[in-house]
Amino acid sequence: MRVALDAMGGDDAPGVVVDGAVEAVRTIPGLSVILVGDEEVIRPLLAAHGIAEDHPALSLFHADEVIGMDEAPSVALRQKKKSSIHVGAKLVKQRAADAFVSAGNTGAVMAVASVVLRTLEGIDRAGIAVPLPNNTGGLTVLLDAGANVSVKPGNLYQFGVMGAMYARHFIGVENPRVGLLSIGEEESKGNDTIREAHELMTRSSLNFIGNVEGKLLYKSYADVAVCDGFTGNIALKVSESVAGMITGFLKEMFAGSWRGKIAYLLLKKDLEAMKRRIDHAEVGGAPLLGIDGAVFISHGSSDARAIRFALAAAKKFIDQDVNGFIRQTLAENRGLLEVRKEEKPPPPPGVWDRVRGIIGLGGDEKKTEGDL
Amino acid sequence: MRVALDAMGGDDAPGVVVDGAVEAVRTIPGLSVILVGDEEVIRPLLAAHGIAEDHPALSLFHADEVIGMDEAPSVALRQKKKSSIHVGAKLVKQRAADAFVSAGNTGAVMAVASVVLRTLEGIDRAGIAVPLPNNTGGLTVLLDAGANVSVKPGNLYQFGVMGAMYARHFIGVENPRVGLLSIGEEESKGNDTIREAHELMTRSSLNFIGNVEGKLLYKSYADVAVCDGFTGNIALKVSESVAGMITGFLKEMFAGSWRGKIAYLLLKKDLEAMKRRIDHAEVGGAPLLGIDGAVFISHGSSDARAIRFALAAAKKFIDQDVNGFIRQTLAENRGLLEVRKEEKPPPPPGVWDRVRGIIGLGGDEKKTEGDL
Repeated sequence: MRVALDAMGGDDAPGVVVDGAVEAVRTIPGLSVILVGDEEVIRPLLAAHGIAEDHPALSLFHADEVIGMDEAPSVALRQKKKSSIHVGAKLVKQRAADAFVSAGNTGAVMAVASVVLRTLEGIDRAGIAVPLPNNTGGLTVLLDAGANVSVKPGNLYQFGVMGAMYARHFIGVENPRVGLLSIGEEESKGNDTIREAHELMTRSSLNFIGNVEGKLLYKSYADVAVCDGFTGNIALKVSESVAGMITGFLKEMFAGSWRGKIAYLLLKKDLEAMKRRIDHAEVGGAPLLGIDGAVFISHGSSDARAIRFALAAAKKFIDQDVNGFIRQTLAENRGLLEVRKEEKPPPPPGVWDRVRGIIGLGGDEKKTEGDL
Repeated sequence: MRVALDAMGGDDAPGVVVDGAVEAVRTIPGLSVILVGDEEVIRPLLAAHGIAEDHPALSLFHADEVIGMDEAPSVALRQKKKSSIHVGAKLVKQRAADAFVSAGNTGAVMAVASVVLRTLEGIDRAGIAVPLPNNTGGLTVLLDAGANVSVKPGNLYQFGVMGAMYARHFIGVENPRVGLLSIGEEESKGNDTIREAHELMTRSSLNFIGNVEGKLLYKSYADVAVCDGFTGNIALKVSESVAGMITGFLKEMFAGSWRGKIAYLLLKKDLEAMKRRIDHAEVGGAPLLGIDGAVFISHGSSDARAIRFALAAAKKFIDQDVNGFIRQTLAENRGLLEVRKEEKPPPPPGVWDRVRGIIGLGGDEKKTEGDL
């Protein structure tokens, strides 16, 4: 199992990335890593770890360019074809690697992976899946967390399939509950796209539980919460923001008085355990699901440990054949999107009415209702 | 200053609502409250508080019907015209009251208030504004938090005006920083609606600071964060969900061992202070901004104290003439939306190009970029 690793991606690259790779090949049996990046920079780092050039599990593949963390993905995609992200994706394309891991520019990884590797047959758009902690100590997979600003109902259904197979075969949830992140539980809530996706998913073989309100996201109500990338990105980032604010208040409290300092000493271990429960480094980054190949995106601030977890995750994703199960689930539901494709050249009125009847299309719902 | 109060709205109505009203008129000088609801139920509750029928500051106005917390707003709007929500809104319409407060069905309050009271001249849609705590101890106003699932760029601009005047004249922020909640800081990020709103707000008299990413929502980066009601509702509810999960973990930690119990005793006061910082009961509920009249929506779980705060907030909103300042700001920017209205019947090509030039309309941006 060979994983191509973007040595140049991340806030502290290439140092911590190389550290993580070395840790990973030393601790994860069956894993070999191809470090992709500037060989002149990386070679001495490997030497410092005592890694020989002919190491059986850790090799180096040169890439001329580096995409900065703040570069526009569309520009990077077109103008930096020799970047470590391009080269890493191409290694997967050419089956020289089974998976690609990067802690670099998320938008660039998505764009390059989508173009170089393409999506799985039957998947129109790839989506970023982020496993979020929940109140039971389990995980809820949020997707899409930012790859697609606007989506069609069929995309949301496909995200559901991808998320469900990831939850089942990677996280290990027997029969994942798939929901649509929306503003109310009732089927009529949300926008037209969500309502149509609701209908599609109801007819699919997924264990679809309907709409999931924001208030239930961290309550283990769903194993997979599906949404467009705009909503998912807001949900994810706002979550981090709230958690950051509360953590800040707690730090102030513990540092602000002698009582706080004593309490901190009493609670140190429990606070560390709590941090681990909330922290998602241990999950190993976010997979870009739906790509023909395995692509994992790590947080830009990843340390060596996070890189090691991401490499382990990429290996597990391949070992468990998550993509194979996505393909299989799409095949099980093969007819589902066909009805919609047939709609495009409008059939004669009688048939049209029958199609509307079959797929349950109703009138447009009032749009000013929301829950507070 | 008379505030109509929905006596029948809220999880613990009418008991805690009457308690809150009694507390309010006893502690807030210049406030009088009209309790709206079933007089046979409310009269004995008032009597129990020793409130006489001819009390100068607390009166009773009968309403035959009650809208349940889970009733569909559209149905309630049309079929329960004698509800306490309808009657309360009508009291404001007829200038028998200056403001209306309800802890009842949020969707129904929005729908009834919009229909009975209408929006201010120049405002097309009302929006729910929720003041969120931030890391500096200040507040960031999120709107729309759920009234409008889909919006146009002009609506977002109007939300900006409403939110800014609320932040300035109610919360007391000198020159409120107004931002658009989006998935990246760059002007090009977001969807077409956000990009057009960005352009409108840049040209307005607002102190517009551009896009605000989700990660900055609780970091006092903006005083007002504008978005559509779908995004706002997800952001608000997900925030509550994260905070709830962390609070749950903390409770477990404090109750789970003798060390936790000692730490709790040491930190009790600080934890209560922290809870108050995060809790938004003290802000007094969420105003439905843009309505011709003052309407405040309290959380369904409001206790007497929250009701008292909401009554105080409604009084302050009127005293500070927030609606007057909204009207004034709209007048300052009168020309802003006119350009767009003129666009509708497409002008001849030369003019069209010039209009595009003036308002800075560019090509459609690529839609698959997002930040993780």
